[in-house]
Amino acid sequence: MPLVVMKFGGSSVADAEKIKRVAGRVISKKRKGNKVVVVVSAPGDMTDDLVALAEGVTTDPDEREMDMLLATGEQVSIALLSMAIKEMGEDAISLTGPQAGIYADKTHTRARIVRIAPAKIYQELAKGKIVIVAGFQGINRNLDITTLGRGGSDLTAVAIAAATKAGTCEIYTDVEGVYTTDPRLVKNAKKIDYISYEEMLEMAGTGAQVMQGRSIEVGKKYGVDIHVCSTFSENTGTFITSEEKIRSRRPTMEKVAVAGVTYDKNQVKLSVIDVRDKPGVAARIFGRLAKGGINVDMIIQSAATERHNDISFTVARTDLKKALGILEKARRALGAKSIIYDDKVVKVSIVGVGMRSHPGVAAKMFATLAKAKVNIEMISTSEIKVSCIIKEHDLQRAVAALHRAYKLGDK
Amino acid sequence: MPLVVMKFGGSSVADAEKIKRVAGRVISKKRKGNKVVVVVSAPGDMTDDLVALAEGVTTDPDEREMDMLLATGEQVSIALLSMAIKEMGEDAISLTGPQAGIYADKTHTRARIVRIAPAKIYQELAKGKIVIVAGFQGINRNLDITTLGRGGSDLTAVAIAAATKAGTCEIYTDVEGVYTTDPRLVKNAKKIDYISYEEMLEMAGTGAQVMQGRSIEVGKKYGVDIHVCSTFSENTGTFITSEEKIRSRRPTMEKVAVAGVTYDKNQVKLSVIDVRDKPGVAARIFGRLAKGGINVDMIIQSAATERHNDISFTVARTDLKKALGILEKARRALGAKSIIYDDKVVKVSIVGVGMRSHPGVAAKMFATLAKAKVNIEMISTSEIKVSCIIKEHDLQRAVAALHRAYKLGDK
Repeated sequence: MPLVVMKFGGSSVADAEKIKRVAGRVISKKRKGNKVVVVVSAPGDMTDDLVALAEGVTTDPDEREMDMLLATGEQVSIALLSMAIKEMGEDAISLTGPQAGIYADKTHTRARIVRIAPAKIYQELAKGKIVIVAGFQGINRNLDITTLGRGGSDLTAVAIAAATKAGTCEIYTDVEGVYTTDPRLVKNAKKIDYISYEEMLEMAGTGAQVMQGRSIEVGKKYGVDIHVCSTFSENTGTFITSEEKIRSRRPTMEKVAVAGVTYDKNQVKLSVIDVRDKPGVAARIFGRLAKGGINVDMIIQSAATERHNDISFTVARTDLKKALGILEKARRALGAKSIIYDDKVVKVSIVGVGMRSHPGVAAKMFATLAKAKVNIEMISTSEIKVSCIIKEHDLQRAVAALHRAYKLGDK
Repeated sequence: MPLVVMKFGGSSVADAEKIKRVAGRVISKKRKGNKVVVVVSAPGDMTDDLVALAEGVTTDPDEREMDMLLATGEQVSIALLSMAIKEMGEDAISLTGPQAGIYADKTHTRARIVRIAPAKIYQELAKGKIVIVAGFQGINRNLDITTLGRGGSDLTAVAIAAATKAGTCEIYTDVEGVYTTDPRLVKNAKKIDYISYEEMLEMAGTGAQVMQGRSIEVGKKYGVDIHVCSTFSENTGTFITSEEKIRSRRPTMEKVAVAGVTYDKNQVKLSVIDVRDKPGVAARIFGRLAKGGINVDMIIQSAATERHNDISFTVARTDLKKALGILEKARRALGAKSIIYDDKVVKVSIVGVGMRSHPGVAAKMFATLAKAKVNIEMISTSEIKVSCIIKEHDLQRAVAALHRAYKLGDK
């Protein structure tokens, strides 16, 4: 009997009606002849509510205690979903992350899964039960409860699918799958049937919201087929799988240079003006930012005069305040003239494994943006991705033009 | 360094301000040179809210899943209290029931503690931490989470005090201790300084709300001194301890015939009218009620005619509907005439170990009630207790008269 892992996010279990609906979908999957493991997140806004409770008693919550607190959210979901399934006539059992054998490292609030011991899951499946596992949580060697950070429930689902060698891991969301670009921005954005782990990783990294990168990495490492589909329809969604599998189904894969156009608004461009042009200056700036936990994305160093130049780079807008604080200190130490920033920029990217074999894909992007009168401020590339920083007010025009240029839309 | 177990109920941790107040009390206990283990219940109405969630998805919640759901309440409390204590500068760690080594039997929703393995508690105390344990919950041999039923957090606290041989178990409540009777009913009700386990068991069993009987039994079995005191004041409350210890402190103990007057409104009197007077009739009635899970308290059989008589007894008002259903079926089988009930009755009791050596205590109760024009409908006695069923509208008068007659009041 095939084993399927189904994962439902918090919005899918936000109230009694939604929980019953999920119960119905799970039961129908079981009755089609599958063994079913379900992974669920905390209901709706519960995680936010719990964070607010913590903020009521402390300004700086202890991370172990935060995990103790947050883990209750998923525990509520699994108990309710299990009750709802039993009410509808199928047998079910809920398991917390620790009970399900999700072993994590000793980090708190963003732990990594180190091992899954699925004995208990197998035991309960063998009794004919639907097994409901709390997403987002695990246990470490101290027997402390840990949580896996953003996208943690996806990670739980993919990791369980890997550990149990489940055929598929189904990620249920409020969209129909992965799109060639954001359908809110471009009307004829098309659902992608198959996408490779590498492409999905780049799309997630450049702004596509569907899944977190970590769970895709685990899927890639263990060869788990991930099916991203809708909680609210029966339509086939998007399969995230290996290039090899896709090639066997879509022999033309490499003819498609670009799989999707993504964008990321959480960007700010910072410039350190008139830094002395001597060795170690960049290292000092970026060393300090790294120490402050700030990820720097794109970097440009532009020679202005003989002995001075400007260094520009992007960080997440949510890190702006912290970055400015660090840079202001560094400025004095480096003798730079000033720090300026522009938070009205966005990053637009094209992603596709076909780029490897298609020369000229990047050039076409630049030409398309130029023709659309979109100024490019910074560029960065990887093997299967090209990203440009542009002004935020150009975003819609840029995405639409690129989507058209690479013929990604429907009809 | 002495070890103290402190237990705080749900109303003491209902919001951020209250949690901070509890944190303050706990820290002050620690700074007085004690090792401290704290047991807490779920915050305020959270348990009720969780039950309501379950009722949204099912009419008949699975008991294992109910325990999974309800256990989250205490987990929220322990995390928040631990955060609050750390915020105030002392080190603390929260432990769920399973983490604290509270092993229970396989019953769900009203499990019994079978063993406490306090190794983890000792480990954390040795690091100088305040240990916060979730009340009301344990783990069974299947590694399932269980809950201990009503008063479960008291039970957790007393059992931990027993297992760790703590000097005292302090039960913090919203009253100042155990009173000679309900101060809402009798103005000059007096706080009792020392009360024996036996008396407290009878008082709890006859309506005193302070503590559940199960935790007092555990306290008695393991010789744990229980100090019932107020969350909101520093006053000494009531010590529940052995008769021997009390005698050493209060040599006059046996001169006090009655320690307190209690009452229980959750009573209904049922009568089966005109049952045939032949052997096995009572057995059949009470056998069926027992099978239906209904506890019968007092019983009176009164011969009315030669061959017929009436049987009257009391059950909890909350069981009335169920009892009537069972009796209606039994009535036909027994050929009884009718079933009548009176739910306007209450049980008033006097409790005291002094009764053993003082004859005439019960007679004085009946005389006092008669003088107060309170009609007695049923009577039951134990070695250290006398209970009477009276009309509810006589309650205040009866309690006040008894309280006065046994000289229990202040001044």
